[in-house]
Amino acid sequence: MKTEWIAVDWGTTALRAWAMVGGAVVDLRHSDRGMGRLQPSEFEAALLDLVSDWLGAEATPVVACGMVGSRQGWVEAPYSRVPCKPLTTTVTAPTTDPRLRVDVISGLAQDTPPDVMRGEETQIAGFLALNPSFDGILCLPGTHTKWVHMSAGEVVSFRTVMSGEVFAAISTQTVLRHSLDTQEMDREAFDAALSETMTRPETFARDLFGLRAADLLTQAPPQVARARLSGGLIGLELAATKPYWLGQPVAIIGAPALSALYERSLRAQGVICEQADADEVTRAGLHAAYLRIQGIAS
Amino acid sequence: MKTEWIAVDWGTTALRAWAMVGGAVVDLRHSDRGMGRLQPSEFEAALLDLVSDWLGAEATPVVACGMVGSRQGWVEAPYSRVPCKPLTTTVTAPTTDPRLRVDVISGLAQDTPPDVMRGEETQIAGFLALNPSFDGILCLPGTHTKWVHMSAGEVVSFRTVMSGEVFAAISTQTVLRHSLDTQEMDREAFDAALSETMTRPETFARDLFGLRAADLLTQAPPQVARARLSGGLIGLELAATKPYWLGQPVAIIGAPALSALYERSLRAQGVICEQADADEVTRAGLHAAYLRIQGIAS
Repeated sequence: MKTEWIAVDWGTTALRAWAMVGGAVVDLRHSDRGMGRLQPSEFEAALLDLVSDWLGAEATPVVACGMVGSRQGWVEAPYSRVPCKPLTTTVTAPTTDPRLRVDVISGLAQDTPPDVMRGEETQIAGFLALNPSFDGILCLPGTHTKWVHMSAGEVVSFRTVMSGEVFAAISTQTVLRHSLDTQEMDREAFDAALSETMTRPETFARDLFGLRAADLLTQAPPQVARARLSGGLIGLELAATKPYWLGQPVAIIGAPALSALYERSLRAQGVICEQADADEVTRAGLHAAYLRIQGIAS
Repeated sequence: MKTEWIAVDWGTTALRAWAMVGGAVVDLRHSDRGMGRLQPSEFEAALLDLVSDWLGAEATPVVACGMVGSRQGWVEAPYSRVPCKPLTTTVTAPTTDPRLRVDVISGLAQDTPPDVMRGEETQIAGFLALNPSFDGILCLPGTHTKWVHMSAGEVVSFRTVMSGEVFAAISTQTVLRHSLDTQEMDREAFDAALSETMTRPETFARDLFGLRAADLLTQAPPQVARARLSGGLIGLELAATKPYWLGQPVAIIGAPALSALYERSLRAQGVICEQADADEVTRAGLHAAYLRIQGIAS
């Protein structure tokens, strides 16, 4: 089937593209040529390498979100200030190949406290397209987890907590790496650490070295140490973001395994939450942007 | 002057040796051949490379502390369990050169909560040798800061907080590295972050990404971001170690710049504290161990 338009999610470490007809996927590709590995002049070639056989003689519309729109990206798509709708402006990227017309979606920024997002605004728009009446909190867990307060179709405020990146730095770059050599997590240890840091957040930093010492002294299992580090960080995050989730419905949008940890943690606080499919909402957000660019929807 | 004995502080990343006559230094050397870069069979040669011209025909006593006594070191000097005096046992390392006799000082361990130290026990012993009547808290800031409760010449309990290593991991391995490119720290920003995390520890993790966002949105100066990260981590540490320092005299033993940050932070809580010279207490501890090994003191 002929590609009508191309949806692109172009982050720091990865590039994903979907060949689309309306809101339906007809093909998909991905590559590891993320923004972090490309100079501004290299984006067009990187995209063509991945999708050129989807293109016809006429310009195919491409709609892209993510770090591709940052200052170090293909073209800078300036941040829009919240409160605002998640989809605001797009910027057309410079291209030389007449078969391409590429529009990049702006990220969102907040002045107080200072915060930014790029890519998540598109997922938020997609979630709203699929759930138009949703009011409440969106939680987008990842390297930089976003907590987003939605009301009447607008992003009211948001907060980024970098628990994922801190987990990666501590678990690979400190002495704890010797005691975390597993991908498994002990559920009870996760729950206990979560509960402890939610009650006494200051214990998080104090108890870190104990994970190493317990390994040295009693060969404590790595799946316990890994679960305690994860549970401790998520507990610290939930303690700090309580004004977001307390008494609110929460929808979680992220990779399934990490989303499940957040769901488990929020449910332990009595929060009503659900998971949404991250790929589906990303495509729905890019589709909503495509319809706006084509003048089909507002 | 002829070397009577050799004092050695052999950690993970560095080897330092002093040629001694009694308690007086007659020469000193250092090298970057720490435990982390050596196989067990390579320690003797590394030491000889550094100090062979200090040696006479007879065996010169060498007293060593630090990671040289770990399982991956020259010889394992098993941990002694607290409560106990800081100097407990020594283990003689295997040597082939008749000009050397090397004794390695045991570290200390604690079962509940699990914790270990290697090297700091020697500094503690040296501090006690210089301040025999001290009862109170020793704070040894560093990669792994130790908080030590001393009473009647014994280590009653201790706690390791790895703020230094977490600072290094976050400031070099996460997105914040782009916003911390300075060695300067803004004092007001340090004090404010310290106070905030002492009052509301959970804000530490939540506010991290704001350091990056403030840089992106308002070009906030890196010396403010660096100070906030440092103050936040030390605030989290002080909040968690309050049972150690509250209402107690504290002596700080560490590198001068880091010790000054801890002193500033503790004084802001009304704690009476003083700094001790880390090199001097290390040598005094090694000297106390030397006297015991020679049967000159108990």
